Amino acid sequence: MIKHLVVVGVGLIGGSFALDLKNQGQVQRVTGIGRGRANLETALKLGIIDEIGDGLASAAASADLIMLAAPVGAMPGLFAELAPVLPTTCIVTDAGSTKQDVIAAARLGLGARVHQFVPGHPIAGAETNGAIAARPGLYADKPLILTPLPENRAADVETVEALWRACGARVACMDAALHDQVFAAVSHLPHLLSFALMEELASRPLAEIYFRYAGAGLRDATRIAGSHPEMWRDITLANADALMHELDALGDKLKSVRALIEARDGQALEELFARAREARSNWLQGKYNE
Amino acid sequence: MIKHLVVVGVGLIGGSFALDLKNQGQVQRVTGIGRGRANLETALKLGIIDEIGDGLASAAASADLIMLAAPVGAMPGLFAELAPVLPTTCIVTDAGSTKQDVIAAARLGLGARVHQFVPGHPIAGAETNGAIAARPGLYADKPLILTPLPENRAADVETVEALWRACGARVACMDAALHDQVFAAVSHLPHLLSFALMEELASRPLAEIYFRYAGAGLRDATRIAGSHPEMWRDITLANADALMHELDALGDKLKSVRALIEARDGQALEELFARAREARSNWLQGKYNE
Repeated sequence: MIKHLVVVGVGLIGGSFALDLKNQGQVQRVTGIGRGRANLETALKLGIIDEIGDGLASAAASADLIMLAAPVGAMPGLFAELAPVLPTTCIVTDAGSTKQDVIAAARLGLGARVHQFVPGHPIAGAETNGAIAARPGLYADKPLILTPLPENRAADVETVEALWRACGARVACMDAALHDQVFAAVSHLPHLLSFALMEELASRPLAEIYFRYAGAGLRDATRIAGSHPEMWRDITLANADALMHELDALGDKLKSVRALIEARDGQALEELFARAREARSNWLQGKYNE
Repeated sequence: MIKHLVVVGVGLIGGSFALDLKNQGQVQRVTGIGRGRANLETALKLGIIDEIGDGLASAAASADLIMLAAPVGAMPGLFAELAPVLPTTCIVTDAGSTKQDVIAAARLGLGARVHQFVPGHPIAGAETNGAIAARPGLYADKPLILTPLPENRAADVETVEALWRACGARVACMDAALHDQVFAAVSHLPHLLSFALMEELASRPLAEIYFRYAGAGLRDATRIAGSHPEMWRDITLANADALMHELDALGDKLKSVRALIEARDGQALEELFARAREARSNWLQGKYNE
């Protein structure tokens, strides 16, 4: 049982985490910290948090667990603020979409006390934001990746694991570098593609006629272009090297598709489309689940 | 009232067209034509068609309306088969995703009788296939583009328009070249991207770990990679020039995104993401509807 949970960033991710833990009787009191007063007041009204914190330093002083659910670009500042006030028994965890940069920020900010930070990443994003988007059950049967540090105490990692399991998540541990490589491919690249496609079409003289007739294909392919620009700016910069590599690889693939079109090679195109379709079908049928 | 409708390709598109027209009392009898016997038997059992045709030529002999809902690559063969048997009072229409190539095939196949062909394109695709996917109401409030020929009789165009309106579609007329340019951008390019992304990820050594942890972002961004490979081979080849142009433009956009990442230009990235998000929001709020 966590007596006092502090959530920094009470949006879809942090808010849903708090709601599930309250519903499961895993926390006594939740303090919300954030930049937007109106959002925190919404969170209070919705019962996601019990009180609005008067700054991170004062809230942290009595915390047993601190969840950092802010854009990853804000992490260095948060760790620096936490360092002088963090109780020795308090565990810090996060929900950042990139892990190596957040870990580096924690090492820099927390120094010798970095062992109190257990890095995590719930795979349950959406293009909705704010406390209003939070809901119980968001994490049910969703993957939750932990990338523990060599310095972490086993008991602290187990505490964080147990809380996510209480939210219904399927917890897995992974090396932080592998995590960032995998999510560059399956999450960050698709987001960049979706943003780029939407921005490209919207910037053209024909935009008005495009969007008058565009159908469900474009709508779904660009759903994640509705995601939060600041959050994705931070993720893109945090995982910059892996993402440039991904953009190069996809650029090469698109060039090879273009070459097949130029050669009017219908058979090779059909085979490529069929491989894509089969892989997606296998994935959605759970062939890759543990 | 259409006494005898012949549907060539009784799948999602052709089947749903027949179902709606039957439900609206717009047709008396529907004959289904297609390559797959099992699919036609399903269509018969589901009441989508009243009989399985004994070949296009014999079914066409008594038809008032023929709907060609086959992959666009099959159109030249269908027009050639129709030419010698097409009754002079029969209207032919289609549901092909590209229009200039289908019109060229009609001119070649039907010759002087090309005036009987009214080209159309319903914007209501999905990644599901076959008669089993057909459903009433598929076209409700969806755009339906007609690209009439100079040779068409006004009364024939009006007949086709009226039938689609009976299905609930929002009918618009457009030049065939503009149609192909617009749908290269808003439909064909997103399909190629989705296929290419999925195939790229699936072909890598890490594919298994990718798909174990991939979330809803990739799932939605690649929904259309579940589309029919043969249909999309045909569309890609039919609209090859416009699509190569689109791939080049998107390749340039991705290169400019890569350059922003390399320069760690967070502000420009955030602004690009915000433009994409705003355009999508405007689109889905109906800002571009007539």
